[in-house]
Amino acid sequence: VASTESELIERYFNGLGASRADVRLGIGDDAALVQVPPEDELVLTTDSLVEGVHFLAGAPARSLGHRALAINLSDIAAMGASPAWALLSLNLPSAEEAWLREFALGFGALAQRHSVALVGGNLSRGALAITVQLAGLVPRGQGLRRTGAASDDDLYVSGSLGDAAGGLACLRGQLALPASDAQFLLQRFEYPEPRVALGLALRGVASACIDVSDGLYADATRLLKAAGAGARIEIGQLPVSAALRAAHGSNAWRAALAGGEDYELCFSAPRARAAAVSAAAAQAGCAVTRIGTLVQSEGIALHSGNSLIQFSPSGFDHFRD
Amino acid sequence: VASTESELIERYFNGLGASRADVRLGIGDDAALVQVPPEDELVLTTDSLVEGVHFLAGAPARSLGHRALAINLSDIAAMGASPAWALLSLNLPSAEEAWLREFALGFGALAQRHSVALVGGNLSRGALAITVQLAGLVPRGQGLRRTGAASDDDLYVSGSLGDAAGGLACLRGQLALPASDAQFLLQRFEYPEPRVALGLALRGVASACIDVSDGLYADATRLLKAAGAGARIEIGQLPVSAALRAAHGSNAWRAALAGGEDYELCFSAPRARAAAVSAAAAQAGCAVTRIGTLVQSEGIALHSGNSLIQFSPSGFDHFRD
Repeated sequence: VASTESELIERYFNGLGASRADVRLGIGDDAALVQVPPEDELVLTTDSLVEGVHFLAGAPARSLGHRALAINLSDIAAMGASPAWALLSLNLPSAEEAWLREFALGFGALAQRHSVALVGGNLSRGALAITVQLAGLVPRGQGLRRTGAASDDDLYVSGSLGDAAGGLACLRGQLALPASDAQFLLQRFEYPEPRVALGLALRGVASACIDVSDGLYADATRLLKAAGAGARIEIGQLPVSAALRAAHGSNAWRAALAGGEDYELCFSAPRARAAAVSAAAAQAGCAVTRIGTLVQSEGIALHSGNSLIQFSPSGFDHFRD
Repeated sequence: VASTESELIERYFNGLGASRADVRLGIGDDAALVQVPPEDELVLTTDSLVEGVHFLAGAPARSLGHRALAINLSDIAAMGASPAWALLSLNLPSAEEAWLREFALGFGALAQRHSVALVGGNLSRGALAITVQLAGLVPRGQGLRRTGAASDDDLYVSGSLGDAAGGLACLRGQLALPASDAQFLLQRFEYPEPRVALGLALRGVASACIDVSDGLYADATRLLKAAGAGARIEIGQLPVSAALRAAHGSNAWRAALAGGEDYELCFSAPRARAAAVSAAAAQAGCAVTRIGTLVQSEGIALHSGNSLIQFSPSGFDHFRD
């Protein structure tokens, strides 16, 4: 006998993630009840993974559970907030329990590490699609925003860029690489590590922040537009992994600018806070690289030393490909 | 030139719904920032509509916008809470702007009426599916729950039952009715009115509450199981509209017990609060009917006067049909 929606939720999702004292009522009622500290603002975000768009058919369920939460954690990280409570909406063609078990393992392990409690959601039949809503907390007025960067601020990015897109290219058979390089890139695509600790450490340090989901060029452009500014970026400064360099050689910077799904943070800070940025990176245990400087003229000017470099942006967009 | 995801969000969703002073940062950043009053608990819920499961292909976009929010408002209503902030995840096969305009009209009108601000979300390509997350507020400790009903409490339901299922049957050509009856039932399916005002009025009055989404029999059973109790329900007391009676005659009570998607509230209250229940119904401007009484033995016993009536439940379930 197949299981009902309620039985599946009870079996795989009830109690998933961290146990939090501020959850008054979790899964199993019409809605969850949670307690927000009076000194905090509430941070709300949602993001989805759709088969054929954000992942290939047959993608490992454990990776999907991880990624569905990670892409939301990354939004919370970009606000400098602490993640707290998640809701999960899962559309499945059929109730394959092995799939659900693996999905819950991926989701639950990442939720545990970031103290996130799964407090509700729903299962429905449908084409495979996963939507997570994540709520977080940030002391009132201290949230990081896309707006706030000033001309002459430095521009930074965490981690390395373009790896996830490289991993996807490996999956598609578009990149032939030594196994260790391919594995590194694949791991970066399937199990991105949202920069929550870095976001927290950047409160009071970064002047503006955005997460890199559509590619650095596209997301940095959003931060710059919000500031009414542009940036001069040194392509030699773009952080590129050894695996991506093995894949793309001297063109690795192009892959770093265009590749999406890295879930790194791109942020600005006044020059005078350069030491504070380094301290935040050290505190978070996360590499941070200064890639350029904000300028008054609009757009991104790519430099290699004194040479201006041409680049056609092609950030991913769902409705204009 | 087709529009980008950002342009579509800006055009159809930015500023949708009510304008709320507690929204510090709405659509356009990595996440929204909102302010929760210190005396309140936060209520979190999510629910989805999937094409082919919750609605037929070609369903009017305005109805879908309304229903996607209504099904979440109904969960908030069942908690006795005030709705506040919504997030919307929309998977669309293509960006048809006429569809988006109608969807936004349906969503926006209902959001306005219930003081809900749309503060974030995302658009993705994919099979048509709509997920809404709704956050609400309830004074600490005053939220209504599924648990809490006691033996000898009275059992109530709002509005009339089975109409939405009747409307869907009309759409499918399974019910032939006079136009005015069909229109009434269709309206109940396409534009359900969540009982938010009733939920608020039932705080401190109802001992337990659940919304009726899968059919009264299925949802009342959940409330009763949470109480470790059963109920004696008088089938002659089940509230049935004139249109549903026109459709099903003396079997209308079966349709009332089994039909889903009505989004009425089913709740219990001690006999001593019967006058308070009437006052709550009057305050909310919403019909409420006493349909039975909780008993110590498990399950639902259906009575017609002194006769025990047989009924095979068939509440909708996604993974066991």
